[in-house]
Amino acid sequence: MKYAVEVGTVSLETEPGVLTMNAVADKENPCDITILETYAIREAYESHIASEHFQKYKQGTLHMVDSLRLDDVTPLNPNNILTNIIRK
Amino acid sequence: MKYAVEVGTVSLETEPGVLTMNAVADKENPCDITILETYAIREAYESHIASEHFQKYKQGTLHMVDSLRLDDVTPLNPNNILTNIIRK
Repeated sequence: MKYAVEVGTVSLETEPGVLTMNAVADKENPCDITILETYAIREAYESHIASEHFQKYKQGTLHMVDSLRLDDVTPLNPNNILTNIIRK
Repeated sequence: MKYAVEVGTVSLETEPGVLTMNAVADKENPCDITILETYAIREAYESHIASEHFQKYKQGTLHMVDSLRLDDVTPLNPNNILTNIIRK
């Protein structure tokens, strides 16, 4: 949880191409985490996974992750706009 | 898709207690839809599902929905704030 919160914060605050990075835990099974990630362009995603903060998260949590599913998705309504910030 | 886009738009624009209503379709299986819904308080959810626009969506799509899962979730980081609007 600590790693995930940190990587989300650093990514949103330092990577302009990271538009959303919002994580939720299932109430019935709190180890089941879903993260909504939105990138301005594909290159923003590639530079994100190459970043030092992402690699710290990835390597630091590798032994805790039993399964991982990456679902590539399309917004249903392109006019439905999410803005994501870290509150100070 | 049309019903889902409509109910999202009307809910965000007319229900102050609806904070996010953001739908995405899986690219590999576009019939697999995920909606991130956030409500200010539980009563906002209850008034949402009782609303005329939600009931139009619900009744209009009932015969198309093969399976539905409602996952109650908790934000990992309470300072990670999503804002959701419909762009004009």
